[in-house]
Amino acid sequence: ELQLNLEQIEKGGYEHFMLKEIYEQPHAILDTYRGRLNTEHGIIKMAGVEDNLQKFLNANRIIIVACGTSWHAGLVAEYLFEDFTRIPVEVEYASEFRYRNPIITKNDVVIAISQSGETADTLAAIKLAKEQGAFVFGVCNVVGSSIARETHAGAYTHAGPEIGVASTKAFTTQITVLTLIALRIANAKGSLSKSEYFNILTELETIPAKVEKVLRTDPHVKAIASLFKDATNFLYLGRGYNFPVALEGALKLKEISYIHAEGYPAAEMKHGPIALIDEQMPVAFIATKKGHYDKVISNMQEIKSRKGKIIAIVTEGDTTTKDIADFTIEIPETSEALAPLITTIPLQLLSYHIAVMRGCNVDQPRNLAKSVTVE
Amino acid sequence: ELQLNLEQIEKGGYEHFMLKEIYEQPHAILDTYRGRLNTEHGIIKMAGVEDNLQKFLNANRIIIVACGTSWHAGLVAEYLFEDFTRIPVEVEYASEFRYRNPIITKNDVVIAISQSGETADTLAAIKLAKEQGAFVFGVCNVVGSSIARETHAGAYTHAGPEIGVASTKAFTTQITVLTLIALRIANAKGSLSKSEYFNILTELETIPAKVEKVLRTDPHVKAIASLFKDATNFLYLGRGYNFPVALEGALKLKEISYIHAEGYPAAEMKHGPIALIDEQMPVAFIATKKGHYDKVISNMQEIKSRKGKIIAIVTEGDTTTKDIADFTIEIPETSEALAPLITTIPLQLLSYHIAVMRGCNVDQPRNLAKSVTVE
Repeated sequence: ELQLNLEQIEKGGYEHFMLKEIYEQPHAILDTYRGRLNTEHGIIKMAGVEDNLQKFLNANRIIIVACGTSWHAGLVAEYLFEDFTRIPVEVEYASEFRYRNPIITKNDVVIAISQSGETADTLAAIKLAKEQGAFVFGVCNVVGSSIARETHAGAYTHAGPEIGVASTKAFTTQITVLTLIALRIANAKGSLSKSEYFNILTELETIPAKVEKVLRTDPHVKAIASLFKDATNFLYLGRGYNFPVALEGALKLKEISYIHAEGYPAAEMKHGPIALIDEQMPVAFIATKKGHYDKVISNMQEIKSRKGKIIAIVTEGDTTTKDIADFTIEIPETSEALAPLITTIPLQLLSYHIAVMRGCNVDQPRNLAKSVTVE
Repeated sequence: ELQLNLEQIEKGGYEHFMLKEIYEQPHAILDTYRGRLNTEHGIIKMAGVEDNLQKFLNANRIIIVACGTSWHAGLVAEYLFEDFTRIPVEVEYASEFRYRNPIITKNDVVIAISQSGETADTLAAIKLAKEQGAFVFGVCNVVGSSIARETHAGAYTHAGPEIGVASTKAFTTQITVLTLIALRIANAKGSLSKSEYFNILTELETIPAKVEKVLRTDPHVKAIASLFKDATNFLYLGRGYNFPVALEGALKLKEISYIHAEGYPAAEMKHGPIALIDEQMPVAFIATKKGHYDKVISNMQEIKSRKGKIIAIVTEGDTTTKDIADFTIEIPETSEALAPLITTIPLQLLSYHIAVMRGCNVDQPRNLAKSVTVE
């Protein structure tokens, strides 16, 4: 009983750790950039990056290795780094990378991402990259973890302990750290104009409040969830920065509700997956105003004309999507590059509510462990 | 009625174009390498490659752009080129690549893959790459197509006309051409030992007969199909060279049977998707002897212990998998790098039979066009 009470206290009034952690994101994101970001002076300070700035500036290639949700954060980082720094990025599943005799040189920077810092495949990939002479940088949440110790340098996410097996605040704080790193390198390299650089810094500081605002859509998202709780399948579609968000939205639903959900870059639908679409297939679209909006709208129309049920994450005030989508969830506008930090929130809530309504064990989904310390 | 008879004749006794095209693969693969490969003297001759050999040899990076099934062939090529030539490869969805301000330099080689040579997104990606000064090489099936004309050089697959909307022989012949290119560059670069080089050439010449042999499993595959025809979901798992085969196997099933199938690198399962596994979830494994066999077996055991139903593509004579998998389909042994050419065949047959048993229009699946000439 004492144990139970302790858990209740730890949950801080939330029904599940996952929900608590979803709601912690405004603070977790703030904690992750606080002390590192001085917007007024345009300064980003992270010891691990500062001490190795030349390695990043000289990088031929950045190779990101990760698994699961962290791999999705890596895909967001691919867009961030290529856009901001113009350094080519390759994102690899750690489990594939370690067994494929990968091409790694002394001029490559390898970034390993893992919430727990104990992910076995990622750890093995790090060892391999070090053997080949690459500089390896870690992005972990757990201080003093194996990956934090095995990498040459790194930056912690300051998400606080994540108990729910399905990762939420770890994901958004990973993206926050990776954004800071990409911006720091871009500033040193001069690959981003001063005004763009300052715009993004300023915008980053508005994210916690915007996430807070998105969280207020919770009752609306819950109402939508109640209509889709019996779905057997789900598709998640996005383009550009929001493509990895689609993958992550699908993974959340898979993990905790056991509904077969799949993410796709929206434009790939017509190359096969659109055959799946009928009135039984719900499709979640990320269709924010910035980021190929017109193209996403046209992809949405294709789904609509095949009678797919559409839930769309849209920019507040957008009326075009209202006519096409069956349900819309409005979120505040932000810059394209920072969109994943807020577009991912309603998808976390959607999967959470669907899972709860299906009676699933949200914090301890079947078959899954919080950190995967085996191959 | 004349039309109908003509179509009957064109189908050459097969019930569907797709089945005919699956069965044409031994010849199509042979046609694709014939006249280009002289195994005895270790010579590979393709004018488009020969005339631009220095461009390939000097490439900093090879960027492959494609959509759908061709994108899967591109993923196989990533393994081929990195293994054989040690040139880093990045595979991109054409639709994402064209809208993301990609990093392309004069030292990059872009390979565009498209059966029809008319894929709008791929064509747009080619134009973008050319504007940035990259050398662009096309791999198409249709002679004189837009992509064949827009690229600086190229190599045709000699698959013959592909009528079925779901691509089969185009896929295996694309892989054949890409294998030849990778081998030619490797030989010029000296990145592959003479003995490895000759081994793979020799092995390539055995592929048509091995595909023929796999086709003889058809009645067995059909019997398995009958047991899974009512499935609502499917997972396809593989590692290394067989990971793209898993993606392609899933896409075939999606396209023609409208069953929600998804491919994954097998080791990623434990990072989320394994939550989906219960007695309702069929899982197709590609578990050939060469290529991380032990690791795949251990992934298979994880699925088994969660009561997933397993269909495994295995090397003939393999007894270990028989104890774990519910059903096995035996195929001849080949080298790891050439495995996709034969492991993909039973998966084509599986989706074909399931689709026919479900009464689907196999050659003209709903919502799909043979070549996607719109964005």
